[in-house]
Amino acid sequence: MTIRVGVLGAQGKVGQAICAAVRAADDLELVATVDKDDALTAFTDANTEVVVDFTHPDVVMGNLKFLVQHGIHAVVGTTGFDDGRLAEVRGWLAESRETGVLIAPNFAIGAVLCMRFAEQAARFFESAEVVELHHPNKADAPSGTAYRTAGLIAEARAKAGVGRSPDATSTELDGARGADVDGVRVHSVRLAGLVAHQEVLFGTQGETLTIRHDSIDRNSFAPGVLLGVRSIAARPGLTVGLDPFLDL
Amino acid sequence: MTIRVGVLGAQGKVGQAICAAVRAADDLELVATVDKDDALTAFTDANTEVVVDFTHPDVVMGNLKFLVQHGIHAVVGTTGFDDGRLAEVRGWLAESRETGVLIAPNFAIGAVLCMRFAEQAARFFESAEVVELHHPNKADAPSGTAYRTAGLIAEARAKAGVGRSPDATSTELDGARGADVDGVRVHSVRLAGLVAHQEVLFGTQGETLTIRHDSIDRNSFAPGVLLGVRSIAARPGLTVGLDPFLDL
Amino acid sequence: MTIRVGVLGAQGKVGQAICAAVRAADDLELVATVDKDDALTAFTDANTEVVVDFTHPDVVMGNLKFLVQHGIHAVVGTTGFDDGRLAEVRGWLAESRETGVLIAPNFAIGAVLCMRFAEQAARFFESAEVVELHHPNKADAPSGTAYRTAGLIAEARAKAGVGRSPDATSTELDGARGADVDGVRVHSVRLAGLVAHQEVLFGTQGETLTIRHDSIDRNSFAPGVLLGVRSIAARPGLTVGLDPFLDL
Amino acid sequence: MTIRVGVLGAQGKVGQAICAAVRAADDLELVATVDKDDALTAFTDANTEVVVDFTHPDVVMGNLKFLVQHGIHAVVGTTGFDDGRLAEVRGWLAESRETGVLIAPNFAIGAVLCMRFAEQAARFFESAEVVELHHPNKADAPSGTAYRTAGLIAEARAKAGVGRSPDATSTELDGARGADVDGVRVHSVRLAGLVAHQEVLFGTQGETLTIRHDSIDRNSFAPGVLLGVRSIAARPGLTVGLDPFLDL
Repeated sequence: MTIRVGVLGAQGKVGQAICAAVRAADDLELVATVDKDDALTAFTDANTEVVVDFTHPDVVMGNLKFLVQHGIHAVVGTTGFDDGRLAEVRGWLAESRETGVLIAPNFAIGAVLCMRFAEQAARFFESAEVVELHHPNKADAPSGTAYRTAGLIAEARAKAGVGRSPDATSTELDGARGADVDGVRVHSVRLAGLVAHQEVLFGTQGETLTIRHDSIDRNSFAPGVLLGVRSIAARPGLTVGLDPFLDL
Repeated sequence: MTIRVGVLGAQGKVGQAICAAVRAADDLELVATVDKDDALTAFTDANTEVVVDFTHPDVVMGNLKFLVQHGIHAVVGTTGFDDGRLAEVRGWLAESRETGVLIAPNFAIGAVLCMRFAEQAARFFESAEVVELHHPNKADAPSGTAYRTAGLIAEARAKAGVGRSPDATSTELDGARGADVDGVRVHSVRLAGLVAHQEVLFGTQGETLTIRHDSIDRNSFAPGVLLGVRSIAARPGLTVGLDPFLDL
Repeated sequence: MTIRVGVLGAQGKVGQAICAAVRAADDLELVATVDKDDALTAFTDANTEVVVDFTHPDVVMGNLKFLVQHGIHAVVGTTGFDDGRLAEVRGWLAESRETGVLIAPNFAIGAVLCMRFAEQAARFFESAEVVELHHPNKADAPSGTAYRTAGLIAEARAKAGVGRSPDATSTELDGARGADVDGVRVHSVRLAGLVAHQEVLFGTQGETLTIRHDSIDRNSFAPGVLLGVRSIAARPGLTVGLDPFLDL
Repeated sequence: MTIRVGVLGAQGKVGQAICAAVRAADDLELVATVDKDDALTAFTDANTEVVVDFTHPDVVMGNLKFLVQHGIHAVVGTTGFDDGRLAEVRGWLAESRETGVLIAPNFAIGAVLCMRFAEQAARFFESAEVVELHHPNKADAPSGTAYRTAGLIAEARAKAGVGRSPDATSTELDGARGADVDGVRVHSVRLAGLVAHQEVLFGTQGETLTIRHDSIDRNSFAPGVLLGVRSIAARPGLTVGLDPFLDL
């Protein structure tokens, strides 16, 4: 039996890619698409089970309220969720106990796994550093993902009582050793011809472990979204971040 | 309080490295070392809590029997354990219920994590391949570790119902696509200047995840052995493989 | 002073990308574009100095004859040039001694440099292998570029009297050691999420050198084409391959 | 016919490795070894053609004067040569026109090729950055080799009129973008388990080129020293740096 899927923001670039991915999947059926001028009732009319929302912070709360109230599960990539918004969503879900909502800042499975493995490996190695590499039009350095990864590493090490990575540097040209994020050094490369890449390096006596994620295409969110669509019915309530869906 | 540690095969190359590592650790105390002509009673005399055994298949069973009967935990890197030998060890342990024995074929934490992460990631990607790179004096291709890694990947994919990696190759120069291990392609590079390296590659639409382990030193077993020494008292009975000690 | 540039096959995907690249360059001026139904005289009318031809084997010879006879330089990415065709082009050029024609199978500068550096480094290392990695829709393994690279390495080593790479493999799972191209092992990885990548590995006692080329975009020919456009006037006669234009 | 080779500082760690390498080479014969208490006349007595000197700045000038005056070629890895010393050596060589002296700061062929290829590739790419990775006991960041490599890249780009690498970074955590060496960003990773590694990254539209050198062993100077020994007779006068011997 297939899952009946709807897409919000279906005309947008991301929305179109998701529609295509749903259509290409044997176990999913695209039963309703809605864009800004369409009524949300298209979803209830079509008996939709799961709706994917990649829209805009201005409209996503209205969308979610409607979906939850009608018992339709939601997989959400729209940004702008702060604690207040998350609490509001939890409130709606309390009234619709079998409905599930997944809100994730990053649906690229490789990025999520990279962070997760980095967190798991962190306490077993003397040294840990992060190198992230992006196209030269990126405004922030380090990337949000690298910053978060370094923070997770630092936290895991602190919890396990692992000290700082050894570093005998006594003469440094300003900036050579990178940025310090909670004691973990992060280096940002900006290079024409790249898209979005991250390498987490761990080392101890005689061996190193490297976990690298390369993203070369904006469509790398699609497999993660489909994973959410397939699993959300089994996870009622609010889930933030794709990790729990990976069942690691 | 420190753990009282003994080392068997203490004069060997590996044994010496382990003695050095134990001496360098603040929470461990090296209280007895035994080599081929020494009596095992040195361990009981010294009130040893954990003994590390990197000796030889010919003597390891005698060593283990003595240790278990005296309630001394053992961390074993000696090879040659088949099902019969493991059953014998379990038998001894049944009579000494608080004693723990860890027998592991590979103590390099990075190698163990690389395999484990590969197994966890396997079902999320369309494609999976393994490239292992070693010094040119190696006799077997692929390496045992690569063979095992590919097998674990294949098993995880089969269990999750993931099909074979896509591959449109229709014209192949013999061997170009590597060896086929349960449907996972494995490539063996042999190059002067290398020691032991492995790269596991996963890919799906627009993104790839790479997990790489580099070992450049025979001492890369030391951190894994110390982890075993520190954790074995909390794990009575027989444990095969370092994985369970990583608490992932 | 700017160079007056024309483009043949201007409506095609590649042609459009070249037009965009020419327009974006300060030192080049796009003065004429011609597609299949347009007259070649558009180039003479516009006083064109250099024409870029990414068209089809069926029409490229007619294009080139016209251009050479009118003293217009040509930069050609169209395929299908055998020895007979090259001789014919040389014949036309003999009558128009100041005109230059560049015909190249690969305009990606990184790919050309990767091959060139591989050739230069080949004789200094005991071991050499090639790993190429492509999307899983590729029909041939190894790639044409990897095959050519391995051949160049083998030739350079033979010329310098360097023997085969050492290899003690005595137990091999079929295909593990890759394909043998003139004594150089070549491994072909096929992975979803990749485009076109190549890694050349050299090793000797205690050190390795790796040269890697990553191409993630079909537009990677543009910088090489512009290099040809800028340099062709200084290189009358026929040049095959981009290498000589790199002045290494 | 074999070349008759002598080694100075033969008892030192490096000297021993060189003696072993000479003995292992079919075309070389180790005819004399000299340590601090031995007379240099051992070389003339043994009819030595080439002497390798890895000694100490305090004694190397005396050694070289003796060798040049007796028409014995020298391959020198000893440090501490400033302009004054080089001028002095040139003075001696003016009196012994057929004698050759090679003085090189780095005999690892891979490191020399990495720098050379980086210099050659520099002007063809919009972007260039350097990442160097070393063991955590290193005192300086970036490494001397990385600093020199970045300088060579900057010089090659300036000469070709290539502007700065594009970089839209507007929000930077201090140090994230690395050190600025003449406009080329250099990042220094310090990690347990590493020895000495360097990666030069170049990028332009849709493609990147990476040149990586890994050194995992102090003996990586041996092949470069042997290359010098074999070639020095054909290069009378003073040569500084191994590059010219590579005939690229």
